[in-house]
Amino acid sequence: MSEVLRPALSGPPTLEDVARVAGVSRATVSRVINGTRNVDPAIQETVRQAIAATGYVPNTAARSLVTRRTGAIALVVSGAGGPGPDDAVRSEVFVDPFFGRVVSGVVGFLRPLGMHPVLMLAETGQARDQVVAYLRQGNADGAMLVSTHAGDPLPEQITEAGVPAVLFARPARPIPISYVDVAHQDGARLAADRLVERGCREVVTISGPLDVPASQDRLTGFREAMARHGIPYVPCAEGNFTQDSGEAAMERLLAEHPRLDGVFAANDLMAQGALLVLRDHGRHVPDDVKVIGFDDSSAATASRPALTTVRQPVEDMAGEMARLLLDRISTPQQRITSVIFEPTLVIRQSA
Amino acid sequence: MSEVLRPALSGPPTLEDVARVAGVSRATVSRVINGTRNVDPAIQETVRQAIAATGYVPNTAARSLVTRRTGAIALVVSGAGGPGPDDAVRSEVFVDPFFGRVVSGVVGFLRPLGMHPVLMLAETGQARDQVVAYLRQGNADGAMLVSTHAGDPLPEQITEAGVPAVLFARPARPIPISYVDVAHQDGARLAADRLVERGCREVVTISGPLDVPASQDRLTGFREAMARHGIPYVPCAEGNFTQDSGEAAMERLLAEHPRLDGVFAANDLMAQGALLVLRDHGRHVPDDVKVIGFDDSSAATASRPALTTVRQPVEDMAGEMARLLLDRISTPQQRITSVIFEPTLVIRQSA
Repeated sequence: MSEVLRPALSGPPTLEDVARVAGVSRATVSRVINGTRNVDPAIQETVRQAIAATGYVPNTAARSLVTRRTGAIALVVSGAGGPGPDDAVRSEVFVDPFFGRVVSGVVGFLRPLGMHPVLMLAETGQARDQVVAYLRQGNADGAMLVSTHAGDPLPEQITEAGVPAVLFARPARPIPISYVDVAHQDGARLAADRLVERGCREVVTISGPLDVPASQDRLTGFREAMARHGIPYVPCAEGNFTQDSGEAAMERLLAEHPRLDGVFAANDLMAQGALLVLRDHGRHVPDDVKVIGFDDSSAATASRPALTTVRQPVEDMAGEMARLLLDRISTPQQRITSVIFEPTLVIRQSA
Repeated sequence: MSEVLRPALSGPPTLEDVARVAGVSRATVSRVINGTRNVDPAIQETVRQAIAATGYVPNTAARSLVTRRTGAIALVVSGAGGPGPDDAVRSEVFVDPFFGRVVSGVVGFLRPLGMHPVLMLAETGQARDQVVAYLRQGNADGAMLVSTHAGDPLPEQITEAGVPAVLFARPARPIPISYVDVAHQDGARLAADRLVERGCREVVTISGPLDVPASQDRLTGFREAMARHGIPYVPCAEGNFTQDSGEAAMERLLAEHPRLDGVFAANDLMAQGALLVLRDHGRHVPDDVKVIGFDDSSAATASRPALTTVRQPVEDMAGEMARLLLDRISTPQQRITSVIFEPTLVIRQSA
């Protein structure tokens, strides 16, 4: 860009500066910024270069009035709390290391596009209604939804409101909404294969809550893989994805199956609980009992011994969720879709 | 509200619906929504009731053009990474349970006001420049800033850009910016008093990085309190707030001071690391050695034994940060201020 084109600025660069540098009218700059399609590609490119040269940042409020879009998308974290406000539930959701990985993936995908998610929490009935009203009124162009409980009505509410949305994980009920997910059954099979390969014969499993599709899939995948290895029955104790529930489940399984030599827990926090109980009972991991978790969260590396675990590519899944949503916003007539990611086994010390 | 006033709606309620129900002009409704002060209070009330009755939600884009405000505020999480993009740093920050408590407090305060934070991450030089440009251009009315490293230039950049901002924790360098914080020295004193009360005489401490004001304050407060108890010197090993660094520090301290009987770690993750090392060396906690952490994060309850720790009221602090920012946005000429919260001792099993 030659010297003569560089604008003399005082204060932040304006639309006029861009028009002057590009040698086009203000109206043309406006049309390029607002994504109107009937602008000659060469002129579009000239305007884009002028925007870069001046450092101009479009006024999102003005643009929004023209495009009828806000340029904002919401990241909604939803649970299934009661009708009233509940501080405990709110903290619980955000403190889960899984949530941090989702946020990280979403931010990583949107940032190069100059977009930043609006963070909303919907852990009570009142909060869910507020989220739906906010979205329905067009304060954001769409929503990414991380729903943590099977009974959560929010995916259905948002779908019925006609708001573009993408779910993280398959919905518990069949509703017309796009989602990303991991191949849970394949992940559970990786765990089964590893335990058998390491010589385990008396294998048990700690499942997640069985009304959650992911829990069902992991349990089914694990049992089917063990059956193919000639172990037709795998005792199971149900947990709820917390460390405490993993401890309680491990106590029950040890009492009923004292000769167990392998444990597959449906997430890392429950596996961490299982490790503590095994140590209390004098069982050495991995010499006496092998333990495998699921997620590859920070709990996996914090455990002693460190956990062998099935890794979900959560950051990639979250980025894809954002990509699907932007697609859906720009092309609303698009078909509902889902993208399933492959898990991998991360081998550490516990199995 | 009588039957005749209820609007016949098809599609979402509009400004016209509100005007009709309130029996005033569109212009009057606009002025009430935009907070113009010269509207009769009785009429304001009538309009507000009409808004509630119709369920009308103001178009934020249109309002923004009038008020020159966006109604959006940013929550910026900042670290001190290198100049390039760095996925690892990004995950690290969001996975820290401390961050989840901050988000929870901010959301809890803003939600009743119908506001939702825009989440931004600034862990690299490039990302910081982007955040400053975004704020300077008025895409948000102000920023709440959680800065995790002493060398972070972002607080200064944002202050220089003239953007209303409030910090979580006192800045490492004296810059004119409001902040919330906890009384770190008082917290450390609570830990010292407890260790002495439980009979500890050979006490050591694991500090955070000593270029962070909070780390300095906790170390100073702990040593001064121990001195008042007649223990003039407390050996210290420096960590960096991670579990691994707590393990390494504990190994060093045990090697140099094998008769130690009390440990104060400057956060829970380092205390958790210390517990693991003490167990490896056959020291029983709390019978042989007492251990106290700081934060009361999820690590404190996940540890075995559960950690006695100094609790920061993080959610309350985060809510206050949001309140200070809204004050500052509505009254920019206000003086810089700080609000310091009192910590409490949470007694569990480790001391």
